[in-house]
Order: sequence, then structure tokens, then C-alpha cells
Amino acid sequence: MNALIKEPTVKAITTTPTDREIRMERIFNAPRERVWKAMTTPELLAQWWGRGNKLVIEKYEPVRGGHWRFVEHSEHGVHGFEGRFREVTPIERVVQTFEWDGMPGHVILETMTLEDLGDGRTRLVSLSLFHTSEERDGMLHSGMEGGANESYAALDRVLETLG
Amino acid sequence: MNALIKEPTVKAITTTPTDREIRMERIFNAPRERVWKAMTTPELLAQWWGRGNKLVIEKYEPVRGGHWRFVEHSEHGVHGFEGRFREVTPIERVVQTFEWDGMPGHVILETMTLEDLGDGRTRLVSLSLFHTSEERDGMLHSGMEGGANESYAALDRVLETLG
Repeated sequence: MNALIKEPTVKAITTTPTDREIRMERIFNAPRERVWKAMTTPELLAQWWGRGNKLVIEKYEPVRGGHWRFVEHSEHGVHGFEGRFREVTPIERVVQTFEWDGMPGHVILETMTLEDLGDGRTRLVSLSLFHTSEERDGMLHSGMEGGANESYAALDRVLETLG
Repeated sequence: MNALIKEPTVKAITTTPTDREIRMERIFNAPRERVWKAMTTPELLAQWWGRGNKLVIEKYEPVRGGHWRFVEHSEHGVHGFEGRFREVTPIERVVQTFEWDGMPGHVILETMTLEDLGDGRTRLVSLSLFHTSEERDGMLHSGMEGGANESYAALDRVLETLG
């Protein structure tokens, strides 16, 4: 392989199924159990969710009705995120709300589904539902896609260490 | 007035502006400052929000980004409700999220507006926005309208004591 050709970063496939939704799809080179573990274990979440930034997990109760709250410390400041779990179905699906402190009361419903591809890989589908199309558009223009891809790349690295 | 004619209970006007909204409108015989006080003072909220049932105010931070959490103790059990403030504009408007513990992660956005009618009365308009029409319909069929009317009648009584 030509060393001058930099291997392209894997990018999630981002689509907008409706005017209030964002759907992201990403394949990980790890079995579903391992992806689930990295997605629901606080010490592992702290390693990838914040894209390499320091992440303080103030609360993490992955059961129906439980709450979560993460605080990311980056060069751009301190940002808190929080929400509540609607459904936690081990190794298959998490449904939770998501809210950024910077826009309190703007609540996104996130449905994250893990699909076993049968070849040791796992497809993550993340569907975000907003109260309004304006909020959806605001998120699309916030650089959210790039941020998610950075987090997913960090998740790749965590999955490798678990392998 | 004929004593046999029982004065009808004042009812809020309930409409559904869209398939994801419920709008309630109710006039109170009190100036706007007084209604605002009753709506945002914990000791007063505790007297009417729970329709006469015991209400424990676990958290109440009526500022942008602040949280609230109320627990109602009734003969039907203990029910927790919580949310976060998006906007608090004194004597005019509160925008907040609303979530019942029984359906965690189902978040309603509530916009409550107080209008000074100029004759010592105040109109409260409460607009609730749901993520889906199914959630909106579920709320409509939950007896929410009757519950709200009971709370508003209790609020009438609190406003009288403040007069």
C-alpha cells in the first residue's frame, strides 16, 4: 500500500428518515457482546464517549427509569449532558433521552440498536428523534456528525483493547 | 340565586392544535403577579399541583437549566414527576419539560403563558408538545384533562387565600 495514501477514516452513514429524525449507522469490528460492554460500562464509556476528552460520569443507571449525566472537559470548555433511560434491553437496544446543558429542555429521544452481523462484526444504528424539525436541523449544523464519528473511532480503539 | 342550582365547576378549554399537541386555556380570578406567585413558589405549588393530594417537592429550581421533581402521594400510590426548565420569564412564561416516572423517557415540552386580561383576571395557556402523536393520544386518554381541572380548582382556592 502506498504510504502516501492515508487510510480513510471510517464514517457513519448519516440519513434523515423524517424531518425530525437523524439516523446514524456504523459497523464495528467486534462481536455484539463486546460492543454492548463498551457502550454500557462506565469506565469504558469514559474512554470513548467524549472523543478522547476527559469525561466525568456523574451518574449512570442503565435501567428503565434510571438517569445518566456525563460532563465532558475539552479545550472548548466544560459541557454537561444528561438524560433518562426509557428501555435497556441487554446487548440489543437502549432507548434514552439526551439533553445538552447548553440547550436545557431541548430533549432528544435516542434509540440505539445493535445488530449481530454474524461474522464477528456489529452494526450500531442510532436514531434520534427531536421535538421539532428546527431542533433537528440545529443539531445537524452543530458538527454533531463529526463529533459522533470521532467518538466511534475512539470506540473502535476501546473495542480493540477488549479483543 | 337559586340555592338548588349548583354553580358549575370552571373547566379549562382543551384543544388539540396539531396531532402532537394539547392546549389548555383557563382563566383565573386573580392578577397575573398573584398567579405567577402561586405557580412558582414551592409552598404554594405544593397546595394545588397535586389536586389536594400530598405533594413532596424534592427539587424546584425555576431558572433556565434548573430541574424540578415532585412526588405526589395519593390513594392510588406514589407518583414522581420531573423535568427541566428551558425558560423562566417572570410573570409571563415558563417553558419546561415534563416526565412521569411511570413512563420514563417520554418527555413532554410544556409552555405555560400568563396573559393579563386587564380586569384583575389572568388567562393561563398551557401548550404541551409530545414527541409522537401516540404519546399525545395516550395522555388525552389518561384522564389528564380531569386531573388538570382538579389542579386548577385547587389553584383557585390558593389564589383566594393570597387575595
